[in-house]
Amino acid sequence: MSTFAADSVGLVTPQRHSFSEPLQLTCGKALAPYELVYETYGALNAAADNAVLICHALSGHHHAAGYHSADERKPGWWDSCIGPGKAIDTNRFFVVSLNNLGGCHGSTGPSSISPETGKAYGASFPVLTVEDWVHSQARLADVLGVQQWAAVVGGSLGGMQALQWAISYPERIRHCVAIATAPKLSAQNIAFNEVARQAITTDPDFHHGDYAAFGVIPKRGLMLARMVGHITYLSDDSMGSKFGRELRSEQLNYDLTSVEFEVESYLRYQGQEFSGRFDANTYLLMTKALDYFDPAAAHGGDLAKTLAGIQAQTLVMSFTTDWRFSPARSYELVNALLAAKKQVSYLEIEAAQGHDAFLLPIPRYIEALSGYMNRIEVTA
Amino acid sequence: MSTFAADSVGLVTPQRHSFSEPLQLTCGKALAPYELVYETYGALNAAADNAVLICHALSGHHHAAGYHSADERKPGWWDSCIGPGKAIDTNRFFVVSLNNLGGCHGSTGPSSISPETGKAYGASFPVLTVEDWVHSQARLADVLGVQQWAAVVGGSLGGMQALQWAISYPERIRHCVAIATAPKLSAQNIAFNEVARQAITTDPDFHHGDYAAFGVIPKRGLMLARMVGHITYLSDDSMGSKFGRELRSEQLNYDLTSVEFEVESYLRYQGQEFSGRFDANTYLLMTKALDYFDPAAAHGGDLAKTLAGIQAQTLVMSFTTDWRFSPARSYELVNALLAAKKQVSYLEIEAAQGHDAFLLPIPRYIEALSGYMNRIEVTA
Repeated sequence: MSTFAADSVGLVTPQRHSFSEPLQLTCGKALAPYELVYETYGALNAAADNAVLICHALSGHHHAAGYHSADERKPGWWDSCIGPGKAIDTNRFFVVSLNNLGGCHGSTGPSSISPETGKAYGASFPVLTVEDWVHSQARLADVLGVQQWAAVVGGSLGGMQALQWAISYPERIRHCVAIATAPKLSAQNIAFNEVARQAITTDPDFHHGDYAAFGVIPKRGLMLARMVGHITYLSDDSMGSKFGRELRSEQLNYDLTSVEFEVESYLRYQGQEFSGRFDANTYLLMTKALDYFDPAAAHGGDLAKTLAGIQAQTLVMSFTTDWRFSPARSYELVNALLAAKKQVSYLEIEAAQGHDAFLLPIPRYIEALSGYMNRIEVTA
Repeated sequence: MSTFAADSVGLVTPQRHSFSEPLQLTCGKALAPYELVYETYGALNAAADNAVLICHALSGHHHAAGYHSADERKPGWWDSCIGPGKAIDTNRFFVVSLNNLGGCHGSTGPSSISPETGKAYGASFPVLTVEDWVHSQARLADVLGVQQWAAVVGGSLGGMQALQWAISYPERIRHCVAIATAPKLSAQNIAFNEVARQAITTDPDFHHGDYAAFGVIPKRGLMLARMVGHITYLSDDSMGSKFGRELRSEQLNYDLTSVEFEVESYLRYQGQEFSGRFDANTYLLMTKALDYFDPAAAHGGDLAKTLAGIQAQTLVMSFTTDWRFSPARSYELVNALLAAKKQVSYLEIEAAQGHDAFLLPIPRYIEALSGYMNRIEVTA
């Protein structure tokens, strides 16, 4: 008897595929061999027209739905949206979720062993771009027998991948769902990433990226990077209603290093927990991929021109209190799609939770995503 | 012949005063002896009713106007507002600007030598609050023969001091000018401060605050603290128009640690420069003073009740793109003043520069401040 809810994909087992053909990268280098780890939920139909690709954000991974074991404490990171009868309905769709190249959850990345040296890649791992990821995902699609995605779906950095799919492989994607994202980072976005990178690279345990060789981890830097990142994921309001000025203990300590407020304790915990489970080089790589993303640059900054060749229909969604990728950043994308005379639906969701809202089961959001996904035609 | 502009206060010499009577602090400790370093511009009139106190913000100091030498590159930090004929007109006012206790620009602080140990106070320096500062400023007023300030003026953390003056010494302040400030920090404000503090205290060179004894400085931590702080001083828009996605060199480097964008280079420079001139313990102390400021807490969170006893007229000003202390934070103050039936003027200035706007010569802002200050009555 199953211990999982009826709308859960239940027990899932990650799969992996090795690619031997070198992947030519934007940076000029090529990567080979490499592995991608992924999960699938639901079944590919005979027409192979019901496949949906889920692209993850900065600290995400392939485990988007279901459970790896019966006693796993939490399901995959987007379990609220993926499952039988859910917004991305696994009764209809064959859902694929991978760990991006350069990640630290099983796909080849900086902490993987380089076949050339027998040691961790570390600093020698090549920088990747959103375009590189899309090309690697296209190869995974080939392996899975998916010639064309019914939809590519992602939030934040994942939304950039969905958009890049529409640009790089117009005939291989029918619907692009770009949530809480932007067509490029602003100076402020880059600035926050740079603080995170400086925190990591100035940590004495970073050793120019080759910390594995020294048997250490730049934990302090990673903790700080996550703390600053975390603030940008939440809205001022949501932090206020969650923590306000609640004190840790009844009385103030009045010293320079004590934790006085709940929000400090929460942030430290988030940072410390993250620093124990995420790879520092991967964090640098993910922030760089964000910074570099700017598909319009190849067309002199003209986003409409950049989108001229896309064939996918696009759904763009943003959240009112998201200040990392505010609704204004989504308008840029929507306006360019309209200027390029493309089919686009846009929805701005009233939500207090800031950027993090895209991961949360906000009814209006789930309904809208569900409505859109249900209208995507697939062969029964 | 003077080499200074006609509206400059010209050459100024910092003064200092030693206080031997212990200052009782909010934390329970007492501090004695201590010194305050300050500057004055203009002359105190016979009625002693034309004195204006300038309170500085997080990284400020006593040098608010004029030059310390003929070849000083930049004048004091608020020279745009203080001088003969300027908004705070030194032809009318006797202006006093001090370095707060706990600072690192001459007043007694963590890097001062403790008379008890003969070594730098370091971690043993007591935590200070805005209230403590106001009490120390009141003693300086006594020394200067100022029974009542015509006005106490400050931006950001300085505005909190102006407000606290009106609360702590209602009969000693006629006008309170609180610019780009808030009646208390939000959870997000505290969170950013906590990132800064963690950056400093996890720097291996911090040595629990006693870095002076080790002959080192936690430069990496201070640099990161300043970088994250600096982002919050600027608006997304102003960073965008200042830097956009301008590249440092013509081509992208595509590696994990290179500076690619101008904004990264700017932030690193700001952080590095700051880390060489500011004391880490003072930075911790200033952020703690910000966190602790919450005058309404003593009245169960009722700000109007807290302000019931104030006699000063208040001018509150905010800037449209300030997201560190947004206009909404000023409304809280204004609404409480109105609820307490106090005289208050409020102005929201259209400005693209974010929180930093309060330091800049924005015409509408200078005019408004000037207009208000000129209407303050002083004996001729």
